[in-house]
Amino acid sequence: MTDKIAAAARLVASDGTTILPATSQMGPASIEGYYDDALALPGLIDAVARAEAEAVDGHIVACFDDTGVDAARALARAPVIGIGEAGFHMASLIGHRFGVVTTLSRSVPVIEANLDRYGLSRRCVRVRASDVAVLELEDPASDARARISAEIGRAVREDHAEAVVLGCAGMADLARALGEEHGVPVIDGVACAVALMEGLVRVGLATSKVGAYAAPRAKPYRGLLSGFAPRG
Amino acid sequence: MTDKIAAAARLVASDGTTILPATSQMGPASIEGYYDDALALPGLIDAVARAEAEAVDGHIVACFDDTGVDAARALARAPVIGIGEAGFHMASLIGHRFGVVTTLSRSVPVIEANLDRYGLSRRCVRVRASDVAVLELEDPASDARARISAEIGRAVREDHAEAVVLGCAGMADLARALGEEHGVPVIDGVACAVALMEGLVRVGLATSKVGAYAAPRAKPYRGLLSGFAPRG
Amino acid sequence: MTDKIAAAARLVASDGTTILPATSQMGPASIEGYYDDALALPGLIDAVARAEAEAVDGHIVACFDDTGVDAARALARAPVIGIGEAGFHMASLIGHRFGVVTTLSRSVPVIEANLDRYGLSRRCVRVRASDVAVLELEDPASDARARISAEIGRAVREDHAEAVVLGCAGMADLARALGEEHGVPVIDGVACAVALMEGLVRVGLATSKVGAYAAPRAKPYRGLLSGFAPRG
Amino acid sequence: MTDKIAAAARLVASDGTTILPATSQMGPASIEGYYDDALALPGLIDAVARAEAEAVDGHIVACFDDTGVDAARALARAPVIGIGEAGFHMASLIGHRFGVVTTLSRSVPVIEANLDRYGLSRRCVRVRASDVAVLELEDPASDARARISAEIGRAVREDHAEAVVLGCAGMADLARALGEEHGVPVIDGVACAVALMEGLVRVGLATSKVGAYAAPRAKPYRGLLSGFAPRG
Amino acid sequence: MTDKIAAAARLVASDGTTILPATSQMGPASIEGYYDDALALPGLIDAVARAEAEAVDGHIVACFDDTGVDAARALARAPVIGIGEAGFHMASLIGHRFGVVTTLSRSVPVIEANLDRYGLSRRCVRVRASDVAVLELEDPASDARARISAEIGRAVREDHAEAVVLGCAGMADLARALGEEHGVPVIDGVACAVALMEGLVRVGLATSKVGAYAAPRAKPYRGLLSGFAPRG
Amino acid sequence: MTDKIAAAARLVASDGTTILPATSQMGPASIEGYYDDALALPGLIDAVARAEAEAVDGHIVACFDDTGVDAARALARAPVIGIGEAGFHMASLIGHRFGVVTTLSRSVPVIEANLDRYGLSRRCVRVRASDVAVLELEDPASDARARISAEIGRAVREDHAEAVVLGCAGMADLARALGEEHGVPVIDGVACAVALMEGLVRVGLATSKVGAYAAPRAKPYRGLLSGFAPRG
Repeated sequence: MTDKIAAAARLVASDGTTILPATSQMGPASIEGYYDDALALPGLIDAVARAEAEAVDGHIVACFDDTGVDAARALARAPVIGIGEAGFHMASLIGHRFGVVTTLSRSVPVIEANLDRYGLSRRCVRVRASDVAVLELEDPASDARARISAEIGRAVREDHAEAVVLGCAGMADLARALGEEHGVPVIDGVACAVALMEGLVRVGLATSKVGAYAAPRAKPYRGLLSGFAPRG
Repeated sequence: MTDKIAAAARLVASDGTTILPATSQMGPASIEGYYDDALALPGLIDAVARAEAEAVDGHIVACFDDTGVDAARALARAPVIGIGEAGFHMASLIGHRFGVVTTLSRSVPVIEANLDRYGLSRRCVRVRASDVAVLELEDPASDARARISAEIGRAVREDHAEAVVLGCAGMADLARALGEEHGVPVIDGVACAVALMEGLVRVGLATSKVGAYAAPRAKPYRGLLSGFAPRG
Repeated sequence: MTDKIAAAARLVASDGTTILPATSQMGPASIEGYYDDALALPGLIDAVARAEAEAVDGHIVACFDDTGVDAARALARAPVIGIGEAGFHMASLIGHRFGVVTTLSRSVPVIEANLDRYGLSRRCVRVRASDVAVLELEDPASDARARISAEIGRAVREDHAEAVVLGCAGMADLARALGEEHGVPVIDGVACAVALMEGLVRVGLATSKVGAYAAPRAKPYRGLLSGFAPRG
Repeated sequence: MTDKIAAAARLVASDGTTILPATSQMGPASIEGYYDDALALPGLIDAVARAEAEAVDGHIVACFDDTGVDAARALARAPVIGIGEAGFHMASLIGHRFGVVTTLSRSVPVIEANLDRYGLSRRCVRVRASDVAVLELEDPASDARARISAEIGRAVREDHAEAVVLGCAGMADLARALGEEHGVPVIDGVACAVALMEGLVRVGLATSKVGAYAAPRAKPYRGLLSGFAPRG
Repeated sequence: MTDKIAAAARLVASDGTTILPATSQMGPASIEGYYDDALALPGLIDAVARAEAEAVDGHIVACFDDTGVDAARALARAPVIGIGEAGFHMASLIGHRFGVVTTLSRSVPVIEANLDRYGLSRRCVRVRASDVAVLELEDPASDARARISAEIGRAVREDHAEAVVLGCAGMADLARALGEEHGVPVIDGVACAVALMEGLVRVGLATSKVGAYAAPRAKPYRGLLSGFAPRG
Repeated sequence: MTDKIAAAARLVASDGTTILPATSQMGPASIEGYYDDALALPGLIDAVARAEAEAVDGHIVACFDDTGVDAARALARAPVIGIGEAGFHMASLIGHRFGVVTTLSRSVPVIEANLDRYGLSRRCVRVRASDVAVLELEDPASDARARISAEIGRAVREDHAEAVVLGCAGMADLARALGEEHGVPVIDGVACAVALMEGLVRVGLATSKVGAYAAPRAKPYRGLLSGFAPRG
């Protein structure tokens, strides 16, 4: 899946942009719901810290739940974008109201809570689950694509979505074809995040270090995670 | 601090209730902002898993950011309550609008985002920072209490708060005296969480396992965190 | 109905807690819509005043519309909880979004308006009417239970409610069985209110007397209601 | 005060319109906060029932809290308007954001809760209390007018209110002069309610009897209030 | 269509009120969506400026999108009301939640955006399109009325609308009959705007000239529109 | 001013991107409030139509009020972005809450209404006016910069803004220096719009033509504006 996401990112990236894919060294193989979200955080932060050490220009969190984006913003000097928020903001620029089609129903509340936090709930007509597990997206024999397409159809016809955001990084390769099939923009958050990140860098904007994303205060960390202790 | 929190909890607990305090075995010594929040999660989940194995009746997360409450709800059979939400819900029962006085300004956005997610933003007139670091609360020589009291005064006079929620578990012992001083209820989330948890248990309510908090799906976890892999 | 409600309350109450049921001495036999709500107020306030005189520790308003809770809070020294708000707050602690199943469609707007005021509208997916009149709940020959159960089923399947709050005190005895039937928590506001009240008392929290719930100012009252005049 | 309000109403009423002032036959001499609100309801409903019997074209509730408007709508065939909502809706037609200046601070939460219910919170920049008691408005020796004027000044300068709604029927006679003094529209709800009521009648609109305001169901009422029992 | 709208207005107007219908001298023959909205503005402003010169008492914008109401308020001394907002405010006085039935689906987002701006989104259960083009309403052979009626039926049964606002000036003549057919108030914005305007004038309220609607600053305008330059 | 804006845009644009500045051929010299907004529309639409004929890849509306963005989206095949929304979305990616500092107080309500429509009101702590007229920004002798800087300071200290969006295209050249001065990101909407537009183009996203932004229906246009009639 990392390869597929990296390929989707490279398709969009400018010539001068290098995509450095990173798979988390610890934690869940896929993120489906709040438990996986929580345990994905150290691996994500570890990857961000490594990339910071290599002075990257920005970090993209390729999980539609925007897992760990807030923590990564506190840690990193470079800007951080989650693919969920990337998709929502881009959708807001091309339609009045958008829909979201995600994987499992347990992810719907996570996405709804994010939309509430971002202020964009009113722009989203509905978050729909296709009941496709993340790893099924890797299996060519599954009918995952058909189920996702059916749900997009319902978003357009029943919810009057003017655009549809695909709610999983693993759907990145489907966006263009599904958009043509349904006659509305179908939006992949990975591509959007790459474009937004290039934009932030070009404009010269980085995360505000006043308030929510101030650098972590130096303090001891215990046990298994002692290596994560901020040095201030 | 664990001892102080446990003492505050025991003051409120019914005769038949046993408080089993647990300090996280890994992660930050105190939680101040999103970075600490993220790295506190594995330790919290580990503690919840251990307590589940001992068949406790409920779990209280004694961090005002309600760190990891969602993940713990997905993991646990028993109900889970965060002290932040506990304070907000109780405050909603005794006043029209409440204020919050927390520690550092970096915690304000975390709390505001939670209020948005819970739907209670409109009930909260303002989240104020006292610029008291969490561990300063342990230091008898600091003027932490005075600064917190000053901020409560502003919440009452300037924001017209009818009740004030103390935004840190480490302030638990101050609530009663500050309430008398200012003539409005001053609310400690630890006590509220104990009371709400006894209530849930007595009513026989546990976390819904349909939707957001469905049990984690079985899947492999990698590296340092492989021990957290759900077995389904 | 008072007996049924008292029984539901006693099932939940702690050993040291005495439930003192009171039936209003004046006003409607049941509350269905805004007109009944309004005329239920003097009887309710009268009952609260009598209970205050007996120095009770708290008052529970066993009408799902939370009729008169605000007035009772202004009058009483002891805390006051309505069973509607009790159910909503407890539901918020065990699921991402909850549904409500009430009696008649005329009660839906009352409940929706309350959810707006409490700030919890976004937590409630939908308020559904079962078209069961309050007093039908007393009639063993009616199919009330079946209609309520059908509506709970729709709340879970169509609205994706993770928990369902029963929107009438007269449904208190059905909660547990309906919960088992539908595989989600089904919540009775009476039990929740008892639990929350015990919690407030244990924590030592009473209604804020600054602002909305300041004690009524002394003034003359005329006619039939002159006995209600506050003496300040 | 009834005379003053009736005079304000007559100033605005069309030639063909007769204003029939009614003072409640029971309950509080003035309404200041939730307790008075609750006990004002039977008297209000009684007055509405009498007026219905005389086939009036509409009912105006001349209390800024819009006390009993919902119940009156359920009872009456003719439309019902509260002076609070009248002022808010009219203000919304002549400015982007309005302020409210009311009497005592205990009325602020009542008004804020109404704005939440009506959906107009976002249009109101702030509800301010002038700390003038309702009956002080009758006392020529008081400095009530000066205090109200000062608060209007703050609403304009500090809150950027483009119009100010006077939050008490007893202020009806002050609106025009205060508006000239401050250079923004100062709005009296009594006048607005008369104008809106004439409008509803002229357009031929009456309260919807489907849903919230369906006629009260026939049922027995007990005790002091048995005379209020709806006959269906 | 201007004639039909003027007739609807005159039906409601008081004896002393003269309706001066004006058809825009430039721009689209009908307004269907944002493009027509934008190009309707100069013609609308021109008409308002002419009417101001004739010292009218108020301006009604008879397009349900409330096109140009904000600009007209800045320009005019006399109050300005759009028929969309007029319908929404009146509907709010006679029912808990209202529905809207408009012409084409492209108008739905325009109306939803207005409801958001006015603060009344929560009062509106749903904006429905009947797929009737504006000019079809002029064609006696079309089945426009039947399609509008069908959509009103759905608003009442499926959305639980207690009143329905007709979302186009061209439907003004249908309101009364459709209301009788469906048993709920069906509301024509033209009539409501006339009634509200008479109300504002009678109360003596005009647009606030502080803030959003301050008179346009003097400045040069170029080209085709140079005649519109404000002289300050 | 067109030159200054074009220069700001070119500073950010990628190598392969050509910025084609266009000054409106008709309408106001600057946009300050709703009246100017309305009369700026035909000139804006004319410019967009010309650019469409030249097959540009996207259109940027360089007015912070996002004047005409909706109409342009309906007209154009290529995506359209306003500099106001561009600034808001970018600010949302680098801070929890942002402030806006604009020119005149009459522009504050326009911007607030846009934030409401976009759903981003909750992300914006406050829109502040610096009382600097748009054309003053061109005058080197004015103290415009100092007044803007003072207002940014208040946004940071008093409103706790973590980032500040400059509310006028004419401030584009000040962003970087003001950001350094105040220690928070100060955001220019022109640069953000260029970056977002490049992003949309790169991702291959264009305005949804289903719903709000469907192509204008063919119909006659009258008078001065007959040339704008859509041919369908």
